[in-house]
Amino acid sequence: MRVVLTGAAGFIATNLIPRLLARGDEVFGVDNFFLGRRSYLERSLAHPRFHFFEFDLLKVEPLAEVFAEAKPDLVWHVAANSDISYGTAYTDFDLKGGTLVTYNVLEAMRRSGAKQLIFSSSGAVYGEPTVMPTPENYGPILPISLYAASKVACETLISAFVHNYDMRAWIFRFGNIIGPYPTHGVIYDFVKRLLEDPSQLKILGDGTQAKPYVYVEDCIEGMEFGFTNARDAVNCYNLAVPDQTSVTEIAEAVIAELGLDRRKVDVHYTGGSRGWRGDVPQVQLDTTRMTALGWKPRLSSADAVRRTIAEVVAQFRSGVIS
Amino acid sequence: MRVVLTGAAGFIATNLIPRLLARGDEVFGVDNFFLGRRSYLERSLAHPRFHFFEFDLLKVEPLAEVFAEAKPDLVWHVAANSDISYGTAYTDFDLKGGTLVTYNVLEAMRRSGAKQLIFSSSGAVYGEPTVMPTPENYGPILPISLYAASKVACETLISAFVHNYDMRAWIFRFGNIIGPYPTHGVIYDFVKRLLEDPSQLKILGDGTQAKPYVYVEDCIEGMEFGFTNARDAVNCYNLAVPDQTSVTEIAEAVIAELGLDRRKVDVHYTGGSRGWRGDVPQVQLDTTRMTALGWKPRLSSADAVRRTIAEVVAQFRSGVIS
Repeated sequence: MRVVLTGAAGFIATNLIPRLLARGDEVFGVDNFFLGRRSYLERSLAHPRFHFFEFDLLKVEPLAEVFAEAKPDLVWHVAANSDISYGTAYTDFDLKGGTLVTYNVLEAMRRSGAKQLIFSSSGAVYGEPTVMPTPENYGPILPISLYAASKVACETLISAFVHNYDMRAWIFRFGNIIGPYPTHGVIYDFVKRLLEDPSQLKILGDGTQAKPYVYVEDCIEGMEFGFTNARDAVNCYNLAVPDQTSVTEIAEAVIAELGLDRRKVDVHYTGGSRGWRGDVPQVQLDTTRMTALGWKPRLSSADAVRRTIAEVVAQFRSGVIS
Repeated sequence: MRVVLTGAAGFIATNLIPRLLARGDEVFGVDNFFLGRRSYLERSLAHPRFHFFEFDLLKVEPLAEVFAEAKPDLVWHVAANSDISYGTAYTDFDLKGGTLVTYNVLEAMRRSGAKQLIFSSSGAVYGEPTVMPTPENYGPILPISLYAASKVACETLISAFVHNYDMRAWIFRFGNIIGPYPTHGVIYDFVKRLLEDPSQLKILGDGTQAKPYVYVEDCIEGMEFGFTNARDAVNCYNLAVPDQTSVTEIAEAVIAELGLDRRKVDVHYTGGSRGWRGDVPQVQLDTTRMTALGWKPRLSSADAVRRTIAEVVAQFRSGVIS
């Protein structure tokens, strides 16, 4: 398949590209290295079926050129400003990096005749729902972060483009995706800070925030499974696991994995139920629809956290990430 | 109350301004005359408590100046590119005129400390729902027009701003609002075309498209009622009537009101179930929440259509509208 991949140097793409190349896809990747990392791309750059283009997706002309050259059968649009707290400090951050970028991708698809899109949305769209675990048909959709507001805006742009221009789309509302090659996130953050200063760890909130952590391989297999098996024009699925892991559990596991003496680490909490404004402290996503489709994650949240911490610690220690 | 009013020369504002002024509000109106009309403003321009500013809401600086001067207690954000079919021809039309404009309004509120917003959303957000009449908690929200996609994007921006910057908002998902001083819409369109050429009327679709038509006074009273009585941080309500009127019924009523001989009017249909791509042919909005709050519309859809046709025909004949 011919594939356009946005966010090509990001966390998800770094784990996705080897799979796409292994099964024979021709991959046209785009990144501006805002969150994505040059070093993560290096594994793929030498591959004859991987083509990389460095520019900001807010720029329409180079995007049109990529689509003209790629003539993609499928677009993996996984570029995102996935640092939610950022969007509260800079109120146009997600509007530009999420909504306008997604519009540009859809418009490039429309103009070039590309028809199929996979999109990484987020369980954050539900805001603070009154129904937990939260199913896909929960409403009204009233998010509490600008990040999530932008994800909804992207979903609805996709839905409208699909209906007006005969496209098809697969929208996945993610739990917290974790695994090797992180660019940010709580595990990356805790490991990095404890390696720099093993004597203390500051935790935002009271540590009871709990979310379903999904291993990145499960996430990617889930998206591929959904793409193959869900056959509506617009397919919208929660992609998560049934259990949750708390921030305190993650902190303790990171301390243990690093081999630190727990009594010598001063763990202190900033307090309050959420890590930051716009943070949804308790997330449970109903995955009935994905499992009814036949998909099952291999790892629970607890297992995904355990494995990821080991991998991220190893990657920090070997210098793969920094 | 000090009020900022967007879309001040548009259909809803033209009917709203006299009410606001009559009860003592200081009104700061903004319009760029894209859909709004200078002639509609004339009634209000001479009033000492009405202040008008002409610019495009995509421009941030004049908007900031209006908010600095107005220091509004309440923002009525009813500016909209309410011509749905336009958004299919120009794919960035609603993104700019809806989403980005609403972001600008919210950002002006945040920077100036304004805290309360009334927003005119649309029942079109539900796309083609499987539940009819459709309640506010229907999901997933997968609209079929770029107009509706933008309305959802606006709703979610509002929700995120409310949660992050301690605002409050009242979001109303409208049925088709009709009444005097129209700028567009099926009644305006049919009256105008039959006055120009009484021998024929072309109808988009098969004429069976049926929607709840809400008289503009009911709509305005409903928004005011909701603002007074709904006390959540984000309040999201369908604002409609229980019955529907079909396009064919409207066409027949316009022909009758104009006193035309029905046998001499060649009414022909373009065919198909919808008027245009992105048109939702059958709309029924569940108004249980608004009625539970204590609100009741005075006019049914049938009565609203009847009264509006009489008023619009009279306004065309007297030269108030053209």
